[in-house]
Amino acid sequence: MTERSWWGWGRVDAALDDDACRALGERRVRPFLPLDGRVTPVPAVPSLPPPRVRPPAPLADLATTDDRARAAHAYGKAFRDVARALAGRVDHPPDLVACPATEADIAALLDWAGDAGVAVVPYGGGSSVVGGVEYRGGGPWLSMDLHRLDRVTDVDGVNRVARAQAGVFGPALEAHLKAADLTLRHYPQSFEFSTVGGWVATRAGGHFATGPTHIDDLVQALAVVTPVGAGATARVPASGAGPAPERLFLGSEGTLGVITAAWLRVRRRPRFTAAATIRFPGRAESLDATRALAQSGLQPSNCRLLDPLEAALQAGVRDGEARLLLGFESAEVPVDAQLGHAVEICRAAGGTAVPDGDTGGAWRGSFLRAPYLRDALVRLGLIVETVETACAWDRFPALHEAVVAAACAAAPGGTALVSYRFTHVYPDGPAPYFTILAPAPRGAEVAAWDEIKSAVSDAIAAHGGTITHHHAVGRDHRRWYDAERTGPFDAALRAAKAALDPRGILNPGVLIDPPDRPSPLSPS
Amino acid sequence: MTERSWWGWGRVDAALDDDACRALGERRVRPFLPLDGRVTPVPAVPSLPPPRVRPPAPLADLATTDDRARAAHAYGKAFRDVARALAGRVDHPPDLVACPATEADIAALLDWAGDAGVAVVPYGGGSSVVGGVEYRGGGPWLSMDLHRLDRVTDVDGVNRVARAQAGVFGPALEAHLKAADLTLRHYPQSFEFSTVGGWVATRAGGHFATGPTHIDDLVQALAVVTPVGAGATARVPASGAGPAPERLFLGSEGTLGVITAAWLRVRRRPRFTAAATIRFPGRAESLDATRALAQSGLQPSNCRLLDPLEAALQAGVRDGEARLLLGFESAEVPVDAQLGHAVEICRAAGGTAVPDGDTGGAWRGSFLRAPYLRDALVRLGLIVETVETACAWDRFPALHEAVVAAACAAAPGGTALVSYRFTHVYPDGPAPYFTILAPAPRGAEVAAWDEIKSAVSDAIAAHGGTITHHHAVGRDHRRWYDAERTGPFDAALRAAKAALDPRGILNPGVLIDPPDRPSPLSPS
Repeated sequence: MTERSWWGWGRVDAALDDDACRALGERRVRPFLPLDGRVTPVPAVPSLPPPRVRPPAPLADLATTDDRARAAHAYGKAFRDVARALAGRVDHPPDLVACPATEADIAALLDWAGDAGVAVVPYGGGSSVVGGVEYRGGGPWLSMDLHRLDRVTDVDGVNRVARAQAGVFGPALEAHLKAADLTLRHYPQSFEFSTVGGWVATRAGGHFATGPTHIDDLVQALAVVTPVGAGATARVPASGAGPAPERLFLGSEGTLGVITAAWLRVRRRPRFTAAATIRFPGRAESLDATRALAQSGLQPSNCRLLDPLEAALQAGVRDGEARLLLGFESAEVPVDAQLGHAVEICRAAGGTAVPDGDTGGAWRGSFLRAPYLRDALVRLGLIVETVETACAWDRFPALHEAVVAAACAAAPGGTALVSYRFTHVYPDGPAPYFTILAPAPRGAEVAAWDEIKSAVSDAIAAHGGTITHHHAVGRDHRRWYDAERTGPFDAALRAAKAALDPRGILNPGVLIDPPDRPSPLSPS
Repeated sequence: MTERSWWGWGRVDAALDDDACRALGERRVRPFLPLDGRVTPVPAVPSLPPPRVRPPAPLADLATTDDRARAAHAYGKAFRDVARALAGRVDHPPDLVACPATEADIAALLDWAGDAGVAVVPYGGGSSVVGGVEYRGGGPWLSMDLHRLDRVTDVDGVNRVARAQAGVFGPALEAHLKAADLTLRHYPQSFEFSTVGGWVATRAGGHFATGPTHIDDLVQALAVVTPVGAGATARVPASGAGPAPERLFLGSEGTLGVITAAWLRVRRRPRFTAAATIRFPGRAESLDATRALAQSGLQPSNCRLLDPLEAALQAGVRDGEARLLLGFESAEVPVDAQLGHAVEICRAAGGTAVPDGDTGGAWRGSFLRAPYLRDALVRLGLIVETVETACAWDRFPALHEAVVAAACAAAPGGTALVSYRFTHVYPDGPAPYFTILAPAPRGAEVAAWDEIKSAVSDAIAAHGGTITHHHAVGRDHRRWYDAERTGPFDAALRAAKAALDPRGILNPGVLIDPPDRPSPLSPS
């Protein structure tokens, strides 16, 4: 694998070069938004201040203080991360990057960090888009990178489970499973650059648009190392013995412990598939059909509604109509009849099946390339970011209008393009995923985005949406998450945090404030 | 509705009379086990010691100290509860039975109980079979019966959710939903005599044999009153914002707060059904077929495997072969093709479809009548109880053998009948449900059962099973639950308990010991 980018998405050699950036701007942006014609150059690794702490001898071997590694671990991969890195800003780099190879290493690092007052931020694959891997306190911190915990230690075809260490990346996991004709079928957009541990810690969203699809549902058990001890949850297919222990660590975002391994529910690879694309004359019809499908029990594997702008930008659809990408898959039985039922439901709601042609293919291509294109757009001087939520079906139209209005009102010059797709749909509501594109004043991109983000997040909260469906809370969603968290659960989570992380070293500022620490610093 | 039994299951007029008990014994028991011909008479409500505490004036109106009410709230409905009540033993009756009508009533009762050092045990519908509603400490306690919180306050057909207060019983909920052509499709065996709040507090098992079926999956949000405050979780179809808050209270069994309402995911009533019964020449074939089905993605609504003894005892099957009861249902589309695929999977594994005839019907009849029959068998002097778990597919055969061996070794005279069915099946393992029948020495039934239960639970734990799949922990499963609970989660749960119930008044002895209290008393 070629070198990872320190400032942007993925691999260096997969990024768009300057000419490709310009071509993208002309083709995909200028029809909609103004461009100043400049392409921000790829930044060099800045020179960083020396580390303020260093662990003692045996632990020092697990850590690097190399500037490139520290810069690469300073941020996640949100727009505001890329924009800052492109501007040569690395505000609070980690003092060191620790790469433990065993649970004992992790426990030793936590002990040292607790004694030395060093914050510990689990890095996962570094693809956080919510400030989850970026410490914003003033003190010393280490980024804990688990890539050396990279083994798939068990593949159990009889019970359809596999145990992967936290640092296993998506492609490595699937390669291992493929040898046994198995698959996890878990493909977040970050698949190539995110890890099992990161998926579990952030409750990653899954491949399937319906049914059990989040990593929450695919985790049979997990292992965790905390500052007060390590443990693993029971390996059973289901249990009614008390509150589900794994659910407390799913979504804990590194604040309660370091997830070191997970037993994952795997399945046979699909052999039967069927797909269709439906177009709709108006929004009401597209929503009615999608809701009917979500409530039908048919459980399509793909049920991605693209609004007309999203269809245009991401799938090359030029007729100004919404598209629903429908798919079914099974390892065991043909699914054509299921697709037929689903198409019939869409037809009854006013939809028309169109030749699949390249809509689905074009969309999938865009999906995987999107983060690279995002980096190119940022270099062209644009704000480009996504915001996601989940809400009740009947609240979505007003929520959508409020998000568009908020984004435009907050955007520089009052101009923003806001498209949406549904990534997942549930009987009780959709998970809308908004893409926001706006021109940014050069040099003030981050502040401009923070204005938009704040306004849009307020709009989401005001219309009954959660602050995040699958991007997690991190630091950037704290204000809204704090409001969403219910009183008794807030008290319970604070207590759990204090019990497991009594010195408050684990990812401070994420989810919840550690005991005896002030509120998280506001985003820089 | 006619009067509820104070000592046994359900309604007084639905219980078997003495003659029916005798007939049942001759027909269903004597072919297998000896009977002494005696039928324990139905007990009168014993005279109880006067209550040791009484709340002050306004709260006193919410409570009763009537002997019948106190006796009826002293126990749940396990074998050991019925056996003790039949023997006239009401060991530790509640000092009072409080029936709050509002959340404010509950908060006021918790305040008073905290001040007065009175333990509070939420009663639900009183159908606990694990000692969940029976306080075993020495001090004063109140049983909190929420039957006055009996309203279904919202039915939302658009988003397919309904809000029910905690004291709503199964039939009332379904009657409300039926008026809107909706249903929860949640039918624990206790359906008629259990409540929404009880289902949520104990993670009740659901109607469907596969897929999302536990009440966990059907709860969109819940409201809870704790000694330190009340709150409700966010009402969204899904969220990735931190650990799922509702999951901490699902399964909390009254130890973290009193659940007062739940938003439940409802669905349209099924219009299409298809069913088949499969027989198998041997156990290996039946397990292979059931595992293949569980891993097929077909998601049958019914996939209940009855071993030969269970098929004989519960469904009148006389050929000594196992039966698999298969069913599919849908509100939207025909399911015959799905059933066809499922039958084909069974055939490939060695099964034969048999005319459905009355196997399924006979089994369903037995299922609903079973608790009444249980009471009759107890009056005949038998031990009759169920034990359930979930385990990996490949561990089940050894677990099964160990359970049978343990039950027989511990049973008086070395004789016990042990049958099983699978209530639910998962890709990673089945949920076996054992029924144990043994002759008991008159007067020592409870001690004899406790021996069996202990031996069987040890066998389950030794073979990788959870101590409970859907009966909850209560007090009777504490020893094994304590061993199952992982270190970090144990610390987190203790901390949450201390934060939400600082005076340790909520259901002490269940799940976890409150701060500053000794271990739970051993079962009486």
